[in-house]
Amino acid sequence: MREPLTDSPSEAEAASIFRAYERGLLSVRPAFSPRDAPCRLAVSAAGSALVSRAIAENPSYASAYTWASGLTVVVSDGSSVHGLGDLGGLAVLPILEAKCSFLATVGNLNAVPLALTARGVDAMVQTLVNLRTSFGAVSLEDVSSPRCFELEERLAEELDCPVLHNDQHGTSVAVTAALRNASRVLGREFTALRVVIVGAGAAGIATARLLRAFGVTDLVLVDTRGIVRSDRPGISGAKLEVARVTNPRGLAGGLADAMTDADALVGVSSARIGRGLLRLMGPEPIVLALANPEPEVSAEEAAWVKALYGSGRSDSPNCVSSLLAVPGILKGALAAGASRITEAMLRAAVAGIESATGQELSRERIVPDLFDPVCCEHVAGAVAAASGPDAPRSPAVGPP
Amino acid sequence: MREPLTDSPSEAEAASIFRAYERGLLSVRPAFSPRDAPCRLAVSAAGSALVSRAIAENPSYASAYTWASGLTVVVSDGSSVHGLGDLGGLAVLPILEAKCSFLATVGNLNAVPLALTARGVDAMVQTLVNLRTSFGAVSLEDVSSPRCFELEERLAEELDCPVLHNDQHGTSVAVTAALRNASRVLGREFTALRVVIVGAGAAGIATARLLRAFGVTDLVLVDTRGIVRSDRPGISGAKLEVARVTNPRGLAGGLADAMTDADALVGVSSARIGRGLLRLMGPEPIVLALANPEPEVSAEEAAWVKALYGSGRSDSPNCVSSLLAVPGILKGALAAGASRITEAMLRAAVAGIESATGQELSRERIVPDLFDPVCCEHVAGAVAAASGPDAPRSPAVGPP
Repeated sequence: MREPLTDSPSEAEAASIFRAYERGLLSVRPAFSPRDAPCRLAVSAAGSALVSRAIAENPSYASAYTWASGLTVVVSDGSSVHGLGDLGGLAVLPILEAKCSFLATVGNLNAVPLALTARGVDAMVQTLVNLRTSFGAVSLEDVSSPRCFELEERLAEELDCPVLHNDQHGTSVAVTAALRNASRVLGREFTALRVVIVGAGAAGIATARLLRAFGVTDLVLVDTRGIVRSDRPGISGAKLEVARVTNPRGLAGGLADAMTDADALVGVSSARIGRGLLRLMGPEPIVLALANPEPEVSAEEAAWVKALYGSGRSDSPNCVSSLLAVPGILKGALAAGASRITEAMLRAAVAGIESATGQELSRERIVPDLFDPVCCEHVAGAVAAASGPDAPRSPAVGPP
Repeated sequence: MREPLTDSPSEAEAASIFRAYERGLLSVRPAFSPRDAPCRLAVSAAGSALVSRAIAENPSYASAYTWASGLTVVVSDGSSVHGLGDLGGLAVLPILEAKCSFLATVGNLNAVPLALTARGVDAMVQTLVNLRTSFGAVSLEDVSSPRCFELEERLAEELDCPVLHNDQHGTSVAVTAALRNASRVLGREFTALRVVIVGAGAAGIATARLLRAFGVTDLVLVDTRGIVRSDRPGISGAKLEVARVTNPRGLAGGLADAMTDADALVGVSSARIGRGLLRLMGPEPIVLALANPEPEVSAEEAAWVKALYGSGRSDSPNCVSSLLAVPGILKGALAAGASRITEAMLRAAVAGIESATGQELSRERIVPDLFDPVCCEHVAGAVAAASGPDAPRSPAVGPP
């Protein structure tokens, strides 16, 4: 997933990919066959009416006796697909289906794609509000910045359920866990790291926020206009907010100025960063180059400066991906009946990835394998425990 | 399904029903496991991007390479649940899940429930328009009359996909097939039948329309205010339209007046019809008493006038239910890439049910068993063939 398309697939590979997508990646199965006699009663009008009436009388039963309360809708307008740009609400479907199939496989979660053709934040919010009873959590994908911030905040306000933004929450948790584990491997003090984040979109800004929450103070964000500073003309919104609490040494200029003596580089952009810049970094740096379709720094370039290297490639070691975090956060939040995603839950998710990496921590393994269900379980357990004062929507004990 | 709740389930039955509904009736499974190596490429960013890009360049590929184009959304606001009234968009969920599990089992269709909390027709239509790319067909359920007519017409206008209204399309097709088969069993001329329809809501009006399309001319509708006539004060909309083309003998009065010498009674109401009224009918009448939770006429009462009897009970012979028609209509319409449901398709669906009843036609079998997948196949084949001039959205030959 989110594996960079450095090489186009071969013709044979392309054919097998299209074969896999024929009629789509997902299917809906009944939990049991209504053809079996004991189940016929359950799906009969009498059976479904009994459960419906119980929920009408006591709405809290819905969490125990419907699939909806455990269902994640994977929502996108396709306005910002990594490496492909604005694809719209039809062409984004394969990406959403791939995400749902990943959530099913790794997290044993029920998830369905909801592609939106509406582009206004109001219309997108209203659509999901109108369907509120049909799902238990929202996973936002590939929505362009800065709309994605407003959309996520509005949804979190108007829906009393977890709203996860893949690029913000998923990436920031995965990067933070990877950086903490990397500093362990290198025997460095995590909070003393000088971190440069290249890219000040949803992922970059959310990562800066979470690293700060974990005590990292020397953070510098860089975007296409250079170092992100609060005195930059026209800066506003989430970018201004993050500018105010980063760049403590008051650096000015561009990437070279930011990277000089930096300990860690986090790439969440579409930039290309060459050896000249890498050489400016401190000794044995950490380089997480997560850009799609091509990482900002290749493994070979990173090796040249003896960097501890990670990328978004699922076929390479140290695949640092939002997918390490997302299934577990959703699973934990749903299990706990959380009504929103809090910073405490994100912090717990970081701890979950770290504990799942466990004893096998090494330069080639600063995070678990993407497809490792143990990672999902660790994250889910930690997130559920951190879900705080929310009343858990646990199943009622026995039928009403 | 839609089995009348004549007896409340026992305590043990209720417990087993609630057990069946724990965490819901449905699950989403990946068509294959992304953990398998050949499939990892397909769900990787490179793989999903390849398919996404192909669809962005040629939107017609979406029908072949997404699940969405074959997905039915089962939509309701829960405003009119048989036997339970207005339950709203939360408590209707078990009924929608039961329907989806039925579609999966009998029709091998992918279907997910979308419960709407919005009640205005505009908001309901807009919600589905905003999600248009996420599904291939709509099955409307349990929406109160007369809103359901406006909703279905507006959706059919604004969505270029099949929009099926269970109560209208499903019930009218099942009743027409049952009446045609019943007249065969009894050796009567179908088009000469005098038919009384009790209940002038969505099901009653749609059934009158379809029976007329099949050549039945002597149709009388009766509602709580008596025989439906076009000169009734305040009559409007769909009811006025149907009043203008029914009641050819200009009958006035109530149920007794309508039932005198009638050959067939179709109950789609919540009325109770006693022996006194049944005795007014012609000899050996056809009685289809489809009301929920209790049929208008019980099997015992029907036997008393030697009627050929059917009801909505799935545990009795001659279960005349919209479920005989709905999976096959959806399946046929989706297979043919139809952009709407036409009368020709409904007529074909009637023929499909009749042919599936086949040689086994008898007084105790005027329709196939609800759970018989052969019925679905017959209906789907007939409907697909009747889908007419719509350009079929058949899968592209080979990958792009």
